[in-house]
Amino acid sequence: MRLNIRAELDYYFAEAADVLLALEVAPMADQRIVEDLLVVDGANGPLLPVPGEESIGRRTWLEAEGRFLATYTATVEVERATDPIAGLPAASRRALPALVVPYLWPSRYCEADRFAAFVAREFPGLEGGDLVLAMAAWIGEHVDYRPGTSDGTTTAADTFISRQGVCRDFAHLLTAFARAGGLPARAVSAYGLGVDPPDFHAVVEVWLADGWRLVDATGQSQADGLGRICVGRDATDISFMTIFGQAQLNQQTVTVTRG
Amino acid sequence: MRLNIRAELDYYFAEAADVLLALEVAPMADQRIVEDLLVVDGANGPLLPVPGEESIGRRTWLEAEGRFLATYTATVEVERATDPIAGLPAASRRALPALVVPYLWPSRYCEADRFAAFVAREFPGLEGGDLVLAMAAWIGEHVDYRPGTSDGTTTAADTFISRQGVCRDFAHLLTAFARAGGLPARAVSAYGLGVDPPDFHAVVEVWLADGWRLVDATGQSQADGLGRICVGRDATDISFMTIFGQAQLNQQTVTVTRG
Amino acid sequence: MRLNIRAELDYYFAEAADVLLALEVAPMADQRIVEDLLVVDGANGPLLPVPGEESIGRRTWLEAEGRFLATYTATVEVERATDPIAGLPAASRRALPALVVPYLWPSRYCEADRFAAFVAREFPGLEGGDLVLAMAAWIGEHVDYRPGTSDGTTTAADTFISRQGVCRDFAHLLTAFARAGGLPARAVSAYGLGVDPPDFHAVVEVWLADGWRLVDATGQSQADGLGRICVGRDATDISFMTIFGQAQLNQQTVTVTRG
Amino acid sequence: MRLNIRAELDYYFAEAADVLLALEVAPMADQRIVEDLLVVDGANGPLLPVPGEESIGRRTWLEAEGRFLATYTATVEVERATDPIAGLPAASRRALPALVVPYLWPSRYCEADRFAAFVAREFPGLEGGDLVLAMAAWIGEHVDYRPGTSDGTTTAADTFISRQGVCRDFAHLLTAFARAGGLPARAVSAYGLGVDPPDFHAVVEVWLADGWRLVDATGQSQADGLGRICVGRDATDISFMTIFGQAQLNQQTVTVTRG
Repeated sequence: MRLNIRAELDYYFAEAADVLLALEVAPMADQRIVEDLLVVDGANGPLLPVPGEESIGRRTWLEAEGRFLATYTATVEVERATDPIAGLPAASRRALPALVVPYLWPSRYCEADRFAAFVAREFPGLEGGDLVLAMAAWIGEHVDYRPGTSDGTTTAADTFISRQGVCRDFAHLLTAFARAGGLPARAVSAYGLGVDPPDFHAVVEVWLADGWRLVDATGQSQADGLGRICVGRDATDISFMTIFGQAQLNQQTVTVTRG
Repeated sequence: MRLNIRAELDYYFAEAADVLLALEVAPMADQRIVEDLLVVDGANGPLLPVPGEESIGRRTWLEAEGRFLATYTATVEVERATDPIAGLPAASRRALPALVVPYLWPSRYCEADRFAAFVAREFPGLEGGDLVLAMAAWIGEHVDYRPGTSDGTTTAADTFISRQGVCRDFAHLLTAFARAGGLPARAVSAYGLGVDPPDFHAVVEVWLADGWRLVDATGQSQADGLGRICVGRDATDISFMTIFGQAQLNQQTVTVTRG
Repeated sequence: MRLNIRAELDYYFAEAADVLLALEVAPMADQRIVEDLLVVDGANGPLLPVPGEESIGRRTWLEAEGRFLATYTATVEVERATDPIAGLPAASRRALPALVVPYLWPSRYCEADRFAAFVAREFPGLEGGDLVLAMAAWIGEHVDYRPGTSDGTTTAADTFISRQGVCRDFAHLLTAFARAGGLPARAVSAYGLGVDPPDFHAVVEVWLADGWRLVDATGQSQADGLGRICVGRDATDISFMTIFGQAQLNQQTVTVTRG
Repeated sequence: MRLNIRAELDYYFAEAADVLLALEVAPMADQRIVEDLLVVDGANGPLLPVPGEESIGRRTWLEAEGRFLATYTATVEVERATDPIAGLPAASRRALPALVVPYLWPSRYCEADRFAAFVAREFPGLEGGDLVLAMAAWIGEHVDYRPGTSDGTTTAADTFISRQGVCRDFAHLLTAFARAGGLPARAVSAYGLGVDPPDFHAVVEVWLADGWRLVDATGQSQADGLGRICVGRDATDISFMTIFGQAQLNQQTVTVTRG
């Protein structure tokens, strides 16, 4: 599937601040960049690219001051199998690649350690892909998608209690559940076709059999309608814009259409 | 300085469980392994080595069942400058190597995001190495080293309130402070000469100027008396033994002497 | 029903410490004290009685030092309707007695404010006694009674995540749920017939129609097999022994039999 | 000192909701109501007064719907000694009046139990009024008064970490410290002369010698410039308006002038 992507950020920085942007779709085997362009207005000095977590994708350091405009446009050809994960086995933990091991651990926003007993008692007898599907279904049934009910400090434990949140919170909860169930899971930022309201999206990848499988805990997007940007342990690693200072948001839009 | 290291773990597993050991000193430019040996009794099947975080050091997967004994002995030649970090500048954030960037973020046990205001008001005008030294001194003055007052769920925020803990907690607090102050910081497991009571040790590395600098927030060990095992975001990454199941501790000893 | 109650506390205080005991069954309309006796060995100076929360029951201040033994024996005639609470209406909030109003609020261990969305989405359309029964049933289905999995710092939010605990935790969770659903609820310490393993017990009273109704979230005891000691907002108010200092537990036994 | 007080609340309720107002100055020995008047527009049905916590002051239940206006005006004669609390002894814990005992405990927003070690190590050798003054001075030195940095879910532990907040947070922190130090402390809502920006104010009362002593942890008001409204364990008990539902704030003003 071909995706046309456009993201526009319009901010104001009263004082100069370091900014780390992660807007660009990552070139990967299952998503080919046909063309893309990042244009930044309002940066002091050069844009400094740096690879993302696990060398996936690219982030850009810059210093912003005053009016700041960043526009990213891309055409991406996604060729990703949408095979169901039902029936896929869990990988042997002891044979995990080194880069996958840390995704077994709890992280700042995914307190997997606290969910061990819940996962054991709520999903008995399930393994691998079936377990992940049951976890995602549980989240769909028990958590409401409600913009404005969470913020940048909300953790999986908070969402588990409040039972409401946005894509970030859904992704954190599924990530925490999967890790608590012994499955490596990572957070993924993406442009997603069908996300409503349109915005940067957060989904999950769970390591099953011998590879990462995409799961959207919100159910809004399909695996072949996602252009991945970055991966990481949770929202801290995959934020589309990390600001080391203060900024004022003027406007921000994301549009994803089928090409 | 030459260190003679010996660690013995004696556990009992009523049921088979996956175990990830991280006991071996990492071969690194500033710590040369003269000889070392890991002997494990009570594992089902082979020991499966896997590189540690950032490809530093080695961890070992195995399946344990019944009586489990692991003994690690090593002779390590540490040749590490103990230059004071006072006066060292902070690195430019925008020029950090890709692998260093994630150490700016908060993590499960180091909620750096919550300490930003504290760090700004408590350490005004300080930068780089001076800032780190002031943070370590603050911890030394305000936190008591008291075995038994914390556990595996204790976070930097908990320790900041309770004002007591062990090396793990001291390391978490300094890591959280440093990140809150804009400095990359990582947790390091190590064998440390002078640690009292003798045990696995946890220290901190802060990225200053153009490299990682060792800081022991507890003040128990010196930079040239440390044999590093693993690095990572916090205790989750550097645990000497991660058990996916239940085990009973019979006995555990660590000794580090000057060779 | 007639209950024979015996509680024995055996502690050691290396240094003198203030202690507040709450061991005595409260004389109330539905539980008549036939006879009771509190004997304390190891107190410096007099025992100083003080009424409990809402003037219900009696607590005793003392200073303990060295070996400390407290024995409480009682025979209590419980004449309490065990009418089902199904169908009972909620009281009008605006007509609540002044002493009942504070039981609408969250408290240290019952973060009712965090459960509002959960309660609204999990128990739609239910009110009053039916709502309380549904909440108690939910707890019975989703939380395991497992001694040793919680401690004195565990809150309702913790238990909601961990899904395990003891009577204290069950009571906190039901109390938090009820308050989140707009119903006044208080924690009650009691001697309960049938509690297994035998120990001090914690149950809940919910204000329905025009009075407090006993509910045991653990399902271990029946309303007519409970001798209430104290009431309060949560465990902090109803602890059987609050120690302002350090003590070592030697032994503690509670027995409740049918007279 | 004579205080002229005026509070105006202007809210909008899209749907009918129960509201508990606590706006009226409490008649007490040290603050005499010369005249006062509460006028409410937009309530369905009658206003239902109910005594406040400990029978101090008066709260008012009502059902609000649509535009809601409440205006409270009062002239109050405050005759309160402003004797310094320095040198005042702590009361004997074992002789505390029954109503004072619960103010030793932690509460929802004042996790006193977590501050025991901090208080012991930070304020060694201090007792009674001297201890309270040292605690208030510590807060003044270490916490910034910054509107907008906290909200209704912020606890004393949060403020201890973030080092910023408003009167509610300062009061919670002092309350938690005092209780951790063994001194009964309660939260008090009040109209305060000199509060800047003008708003409902929250202060603390600590039980010293044989009575409650007012302390403003923010230092903005003096004991003789305070008209107390309600007392309680923390913000939950003393909120000027508790809404059981949703409302939109249009405007709210508080003015206190010297008469």
